[in-house]
Amino acid sequence: MARALEFWFEFASTYSYPAAMRIQDACAQAAVPLIWRPILLGPIFAAQGISGSPFTLYPAKGANMWRDMERLCADAGLAFRKPGDFPRGSLLAARIAAHHADAPWIGDFVRAVYLANFAEDHDIGQPAVLIDILTGLALDPEPVLEAAQNPDTKAHLRQLTEQAQTKGLFGAPSFTIGDELFWGHDRLDQAVRWAALA
Amino acid sequence: MARALEFWFEFASTYSYPAAMRIQDACAQAAVPLIWRPILLGPIFAAQGISGSPFTLYPAKGANMWRDMERLCADAGLAFRKPGDFPRGSLLAARIAAHHADAPWIGDFVRAVYLANFAEDHDIGQPAVLIDILTGLALDPEPVLEAAQNPDTKAHLRQLTEQAQTKGLFGAPSFTIGDELFWGHDRLDQAVRWAALA
Repeated sequence: MARALEFWFEFASTYSYPAAMRIQDACAQAAVPLIWRPILLGPIFAAQGISGSPFTLYPAKGANMWRDMERLCADAGLAFRKPGDFPRGSLLAARIAAHHADAPWIGDFVRAVYLANFAEDHDIGQPAVLIDILTGLALDPEPVLEAAQNPDTKAHLRQLTEQAQTKGLFGAPSFTIGDELFWGHDRLDQAVRWAALA
Repeated sequence: MARALEFWFEFASTYSYPAAMRIQDACAQAAVPLIWRPILLGPIFAAQGISGSPFTLYPAKGANMWRDMERLCADAGLAFRKPGDFPRGSLLAARIAAHHADAPWIGDFVRAVYLANFAEDHDIGQPAVLIDILTGLALDPEPVLEAAQNPDTKAHLRQLTEQAQTKGLFGAPSFTIGDELFWGHDRLDQAVRWAALA
C-alpha cells in the first residue's frame, strides 16, 4: 500500500521546474497519492542566513546551475530559456496554488506557471501573466485571484512554509513521505519508489 | 572518439565517495580515458566565503546529507558508516594521489582511502592509516610518503586546486570534459556520456 508523497515546490526555483513537469505522471504510474505543497523559499533561506538565492550568493555555483539546467532540460525533452530575471516573484502564484492545492486543475496550473517562468521567460510575478494562465485553463480568473489574496490564504501559505521547515526542509524541490525527506529533482524517482514501497 | 574525463575529488567529501567507487568502471565501459584530479576543497570553499564545509555551515542541509548518503549507498550496494569526525584531514592522502595520479594502482588507492573514511570510520589524516592502505596494495609505503612530502608534490596539489577553480569548480566531486563542468555524483553518468559522445 503506497503512502502519500508531499511535493514541496517554489515557483521561482529552477530545479523545481523539471520536477513539477513530471511528478504527477511519476506518482500516477506508481499509484502514489500526490499532495501539492507550494512554499516560499525566501523565509527558508533567510532562516539559514542566506539572503536571496544560494545561486546568487555563490556565483560559481550559480553559473554552473544555469548550464546544468540547459543540459538537464535537453536530456528530459523540456523547453528551457534562462529567465531574464531571477529569482522571480512567486508570491501570488504560490498563494493561488496553496488555496487550490486540491483542485482538479492544480497540476495544469503548476506546470503552466513553471513553463511561463522557465520556458517562455514571462514575469510570473505579474497578475496579468497569471490571468492569462488561468484563462488558458478555462477558469474564471477573477474569483481565483480574489481567493488568493484572502487573509486565510496568506496565512495558509505561511503555515505550509513553516511546516516545511519543521520537516527539516532547506531547499526546493523537496519530497517527503512521512518524516522521510528527499531533496532535489535528482531524488524524485527515489522518493516515488520510497512512497510506493512504504 | 571519446574525450578524456577529468575527475576532481576530495578525500573528505561525502559524495565523492560513491563517485570514486564506480568512476573507473563507468569510464572503462564507455571507453572514456579517465584522469584522476585530487584537490582540496578548503581553499575552494574559502574563496566562496565558506569556512569549513557547507554541510556544517548549513545544519539542515548537513543533516539531510547524512540521511541521503545512507539511502544512496544502500541503493548502490556500498557500505557506509558516518565518520566519527567530519570533514577529515585529507592533505596527505591528496598529496599521495596527486604525485601518483598516473600510477597503475591509483584507482585502488583512491577507493581504499574512501572506504577507510566512509565505510570503516578510520582517520585518513593519520599516516598510519595510509601506510596500512599502501601496504595492503603491496606497495612500499616509505618512498610513497616521502614523495608526498616533496615540495614539488605540495606545489602540484596546490596547482591542481587552482586549476579546478579556473574551470569554475566550486564543489566535489566534479567532472570536466574540456571546459564542460559537471558537478556532483548525480552527474557522473551524464558526464561520462558527454565524454563518450564528444
